[in-house]
Amino acid sequence: MRMSNLLLRTLREDPADAESAGHSLLVRAGYIRRLASGIYTLLPLGQKVASRIAGIVRDEQDRVGMQEIVMPVLSPYEIWEESGRAAYFGQDALPAMITENRGGTFVLGPTHEEVATKLVSAEVDSYRQLPVTVYQIQSKFRDEARPRSGLLRGREFTMSDAYSFDANKEAMIASYQLVFAAYQRIFDRLEIPVVPVSAQSGAIGGDVNHEWMAPTEVGEDYFASCESCGHAANIEAASRRYDGTPSDPALVSGAQPSVFSTPNVSSIDDVVQLLRDPDVTSSHILKAIACLDSQLTAVIILVPGDRDARIPHGWQLFDDALFEQHPELIRGFIGPVGLSGVRVVADESLQYASHAFITGANITDQHLRDVVVGRDFAPESFGSFVVVRDGDQCPDCGGVMHLRRSVEAAHTFQLGLHYTTKMNNTTFVADDGTEQPFWMGCYGFGITRALALIAELNNDDNGLIWPVSVAPFDVHIVALGMQRSADVANAATGIYDALGAAGLRVLFDDRDVSAGVKFADADLIGVPERILVGTKGLERGIVE
Amino acid sequence: MRMSNLLLRTLREDPADAESAGHSLLVRAGYIRRLASGIYTLLPLGQKVASRIAGIVRDEQDRVGMQEIVMPVLSPYEIWEESGRAAYFGQDALPAMITENRGGTFVLGPTHEEVATKLVSAEVDSYRQLPVTVYQIQSKFRDEARPRSGLLRGREFTMSDAYSFDANKEAMIASYQLVFAAYQRIFDRLEIPVVPVSAQSGAIGGDVNHEWMAPTEVGEDYFASCESCGHAANIEAASRRYDGTPSDPALVSGAQPSVFSTPNVSSIDDVVQLLRDPDVTSSHILKAIACLDSQLTAVIILVPGDRDARIPHGWQLFDDALFEQHPELIRGFIGPVGLSGVRVVADESLQYASHAFITGANITDQHLRDVVVGRDFAPESFGSFVVVRDGDQCPDCGGVMHLRRSVEAAHTFQLGLHYTTKMNNTTFVADDGTEQPFWMGCYGFGITRALALIAELNNDDNGLIWPVSVAPFDVHIVALGMQRSADVANAATGIYDALGAAGLRVLFDDRDVSAGVKFADADLIGVPERILVGTKGLERGIVE
Repeated sequence: MRMSNLLLRTLREDPADAESAGHSLLVRAGYIRRLASGIYTLLPLGQKVASRIAGIVRDEQDRVGMQEIVMPVLSPYEIWEESGRAAYFGQDALPAMITENRGGTFVLGPTHEEVATKLVSAEVDSYRQLPVTVYQIQSKFRDEARPRSGLLRGREFTMSDAYSFDANKEAMIASYQLVFAAYQRIFDRLEIPVVPVSAQSGAIGGDVNHEWMAPTEVGEDYFASCESCGHAANIEAASRRYDGTPSDPALVSGAQPSVFSTPNVSSIDDVVQLLRDPDVTSSHILKAIACLDSQLTAVIILVPGDRDARIPHGWQLFDDALFEQHPELIRGFIGPVGLSGVRVVADESLQYASHAFITGANITDQHLRDVVVGRDFAPESFGSFVVVRDGDQCPDCGGVMHLRRSVEAAHTFQLGLHYTTKMNNTTFVADDGTEQPFWMGCYGFGITRALALIAELNNDDNGLIWPVSVAPFDVHIVALGMQRSADVANAATGIYDALGAAGLRVLFDDRDVSAGVKFADADLIGVPERILVGTKGLERGIVE
Repeated sequence: MRMSNLLLRTLREDPADAESAGHSLLVRAGYIRRLASGIYTLLPLGQKVASRIAGIVRDEQDRVGMQEIVMPVLSPYEIWEESGRAAYFGQDALPAMITENRGGTFVLGPTHEEVATKLVSAEVDSYRQLPVTVYQIQSKFRDEARPRSGLLRGREFTMSDAYSFDANKEAMIASYQLVFAAYQRIFDRLEIPVVPVSAQSGAIGGDVNHEWMAPTEVGEDYFASCESCGHAANIEAASRRYDGTPSDPALVSGAQPSVFSTPNVSSIDDVVQLLRDPDVTSSHILKAIACLDSQLTAVIILVPGDRDARIPHGWQLFDDALFEQHPELIRGFIGPVGLSGVRVVADESLQYASHAFITGANITDQHLRDVVVGRDFAPESFGSFVVVRDGDQCPDCGGVMHLRRSVEAAHTFQLGLHYTTKMNNTTFVADDGTEQPFWMGCYGFGITRALALIAELNNDDNGLIWPVSVAPFDVHIVALGMQRSADVANAATGIYDALGAAGLRVLFDDRDVSAGVKFADADLIGVPERILVGTKGLERGIVE
């Protein structure tokens, strides 16, 4: 491609809305342009990179027997009601876009579990036709509240989404592992380092799932990973081990619980400040979080006051209405002592505490001091209820865990029977002749997000530095002064033609602009190999 | 690909909603599945054909220097207001879909003139960067009132749309001709016979444009084409030549116009019936159509009563409100005699008429007889105001024209300054240093429509018959009884591996089903070459 013909305008300044180096460089080097918040056009250079990424995705997915199809962007609202997911629309978990037309109400696919389930269920009658894994590469739509960093989190983006269908759980796991292996090869070829981490499944459903996290400072997600054994989990799913000697309540404190007055003082920090006791820090105060568990039973979670509580998936925090229904729980003054009719669970670390705690007294403006775990109250169970932080122990090996900022580059789910037990006509005839629901998996790989991520991971102050596997061109010929030197023009054109004939993708800067502009643009664009053709070199018989 | 792994269910019966042979076969052979009215999934076979069509489109468009980009599906409503096209939304000419979200109101691109104009205007500053032609291959959305024949007219479909930008009219025409040539090569390679016909531009705008019509009985459009010179025009744009000897009004009739009573009789046919005169047919009655012309002036179009009137582009038919504003025009009884304050135009043929006419008398329930053109009234102008029909004369050569049913396979437009004079900041610096608006062209090629069209044009009673250029596979190996014969299994697998290694796309029917099912499926699917491997042939050392 001759640059004189390429639709390309490079910019010397960062765009006003640039939030990261990669985003800024993709705009400056002429790969992408913003049309609206979270909505971008891929210019010719960006299209070439996206198309190479899609090519690698197709290649590796085809290799493991996944079959490409194209499902519509539009799907009838009714099938989302059937699966129960219409209830999530408008929430951040599933910010779907809707369009109402003569033909009915349609959802602009944020993901395609419902459509794929309907499709494959109608095509597959018998276990003999299984396993089936279909995928597509398509524009997806989510009404993100806060689009950011160009293509990293957009309202419209290109995704390769896949859906596996199996006869039983073991087969589902086998299909999952095939896609897992394909994803690992894709990320290898894209030179994106990723860590598949255990995660909660949120609006998608199912049990086991992995987020494929690419560590980078521009990420907005965190995951915990162990420096010893490699265990990794999404911050919402991560747990820690807490080793210690269980404490003997009799030795912790001789003092009995006593009430003290804390008028209008309910937060941990405020209680610490009120006491003005150098021996009392936030870790001496029990944080009590009122929730409904997944059975809709009231439960309080107790964690040390210096830690954030991790709310298990499927539990919900108390809101005003729930506090009204439970007058025994007084907001800001909740405590476990003497509490009845409400489940109490506690972080594991509490059973090893060598000191007494301050807790709410279940009376407005009153707290209790000298509360001893195991003496003054006994939680129904202990578990890992704190949000993991840097330095916590690995639950698998006891090693040290670190939190890492990252971008979610892909997500894979073992859905099990989540959709096929909710939706209608989603069974096949099993080898024993009975009708059985399909065991499903689903898989999402962000094509445009990968493009953005590669740009974030591969750049310097002067511009982008593409890996060979996805670069828009293989070679960039910079011809200096070719409008004034027939030798340069002939040599550069000869090289351009020869490399093109050899099957290389060549970008040829044949423009009548200064050497400085050519070098700056070549640095910005970031093609892996560069050939410099100029009069000085040619006099010595060389190109650089 | 082994058929035992392919997501494929063939059907022996036509689908209930099948409207054409091609549609029915695409469903029966497992290429497409309906998700909702006008909304289809491409199954693996369908995806392969669509992807090969897209590959040919890319190949030919790249060859003429067109540059692939990806514009978003979603575009801000505001830019459609800027171009004035938001006013067409909801009409059949531009049945756009809309989605309202946190980010604003967005249009699901039915076409991308506005976005392309904004994009290229922002990237191109100078005439030195011209010409530029960009294209994309993308899902498009139109809320069709009557989706039909599967992929032929859908609510969601894949299109290659392109936009050219030039410095002046001559350059625009040169860009148009390049795309025109690329389209001709694309249709040649797809083996779709097409006729580029002149057409009216409707909601897209601009002057010159061509519809690329593929003649087929399943088409819902008609075009007129001359059997002598090849002249062709869309039925809405087609005109005819009318040769004859201008008639001398004095010789046409000696009788003077006289009023006669036609109570509640206003249609042409009813007037003919009322008169019960064998010499009076509908061609003796003048049809008068009240319109507003493009300057919003009232005008009546006069045509012989046996012809349909062709309303020029940009004119609108009178509605109730307009008839109220013009009490001189009495619906059903309009006539040219004595009419003032309203323009009168007439079909060319009327100046050659050798008989008098019956017209409305501009009085309720009254008509005039013995009205002679040129004596009792004189139209402001004569022109080609009838809808062309079979046997009319070609306007270019006078030859005989025929109407042909057809499907519009592509559409190309010389837009001129239509968008760049309506939208803001759409200029470049010309070679004389002045700011000038871009001269544009736009081009649309339906990928999924081409798929449907090829299926319509290439089938027999047993199934589809794909052209080599787009077939989902090159070779179909039918192995008979390979579960019972190691020889068959070895021979078939050997051929499958060898052909695959040679770079051919091979479909291998390795299923444990009867020969009858295998043959029927092979006929349905329509791969160009078939290799039959069976014990009988192998005994003779051959495969068929």
